[in-house]
Amino acid sequence: MGSPTASSADQHEVDGAEADPIASDHRKSPRRRGDALMTAIFEATVAELAENGYAELSMERVASRARASKGSLYRRWPSRAELVGDAMQYQRPHGVEAPDTGKVREDLLGYLRSFAAVFNGATGDAVRGLIAETYRDPELNRMVRIRFIDPGLAQVLDVLRRGAIRGEVRPTALTHRIASVGPGLVRQHFMVYGAPIPDSVVVEIVDEVLMPLISPGRSSAGTR
Amino acid sequence: MGSPTASSADQHEVDGAEADPIASDHRKSPRRRGDALMTAIFEATVAELAENGYAELSMERVASRARASKGSLYRRWPSRAELVGDAMQYQRPHGVEAPDTGKVREDLLGYLRSFAAVFNGATGDAVRGLIAETYRDPELNRMVRIRFIDPGLAQVLDVLRRGAIRGEVRPTALTHRIASVGPGLVRQHFMVYGAPIPDSVVVEIVDEVLMPLISPGRSSAGTR
Repeated sequence: MGSPTASSADQHEVDGAEADPIASDHRKSPRRRGDALMTAIFEATVAELAENGYAELSMERVASRARASKGSLYRRWPSRAELVGDAMQYQRPHGVEAPDTGKVREDLLGYLRSFAAVFNGATGDAVRGLIAETYRDPELNRMVRIRFIDPGLAQVLDVLRRGAIRGEVRPTALTHRIASVGPGLVRQHFMVYGAPIPDSVVVEIVDEVLMPLISPGRSSAGTR
Repeated sequence: MGSPTASSADQHEVDGAEADPIASDHRKSPRRRGDALMTAIFEATVAELAENGYAELSMERVASRARASKGSLYRRWPSRAELVGDAMQYQRPHGVEAPDTGKVREDLLGYLRSFAAVFNGATGDAVRGLIAETYRDPELNRMVRIRFIDPGLAQVLDVLRRGAIRGEVRPTALTHRIASVGPGLVRQHFMVYGAPIPDSVVVEIVDEVLMPLISPGRSSAGTR
């Protein structure tokens, strides 16, 4: 896991065996430094995902759209799935993060709002083009799980653990299954009802489902 | 909602303006009665979904696979979405049903096992070919919601209502949002981890999530 491309991203374009025809022709366009080239490739990847979906995505099309050589892509990414993972991460450099507010309800709301924003924002169309293939393409599925789903569950478990220490969460609620409920329901809403996901839906998921589920008190006690 | 094709399904093939070339040539193959023709069309639809997905599904391909005329399809189904709805319903004539065992846990287990069977069984591949398009194609989305998702939620609400009358379910848990948790988590499991959905996952969803969520007692009280 992790990105093998992080260090090579800072290298200049011409370090490979094959020089990029476009990037190295500085009379037509100044040679692009690694950063600019990476940005162009990531944006092309996200645009291709949004327009045509993962099933149609190819290194060739991304290269052509980014005005880069195929070699410059193949040197960095062994597979489409890894390229897509890096491109999605580039779009949200800080990922989906749970705040630490000292209140479990606020932490869950913050996390799920940040999660919903992935589907609602500029990346939403790309996610749409991606999610359809995640259960057809084992390599993509593995990438999505390792880089996005599992770290997301770990964050929710951290929120629950902090809440349990404060006595806001019953200790028996610290399970993988319970941590998956919030993200699962937000993702389901996106899949059935599309984007944007209204904030009221996120609030309802937290107040109607998560708080009664994790609360140490009577589950019927008001959580609002 | 409802199927406009239910009554025409019992009619013979030659009743339309256009006779089916294959069905009416009884020297090559005996004319197929409506039932046999419908079965062939439904099976062809499900096979096309499983092999190529909804995006590729066309009336032409289904007709050709079922050895029926395009006219025989267009006369009955105004759209691909309605054809697919009927074909899915044909595969599971009794739908996904919740038993009425007198125990909310057993009813929920029964319902979710029946729901999981849709993804696990012969229809699983067709569902896979369908689900990817449900958030890209508004007509398909509407059909899936009206014919499958909303009736499913109504069934779970019935289970919860019966449980509330017996005192097994807190009355405040009778919400659309809470009813959607079980099916949503089963569907999510299918989308992330594929089929078959192990029975242990269904049991875990019921015992770790649903029972604490709907229980009128302390949510941390053991439900196993």
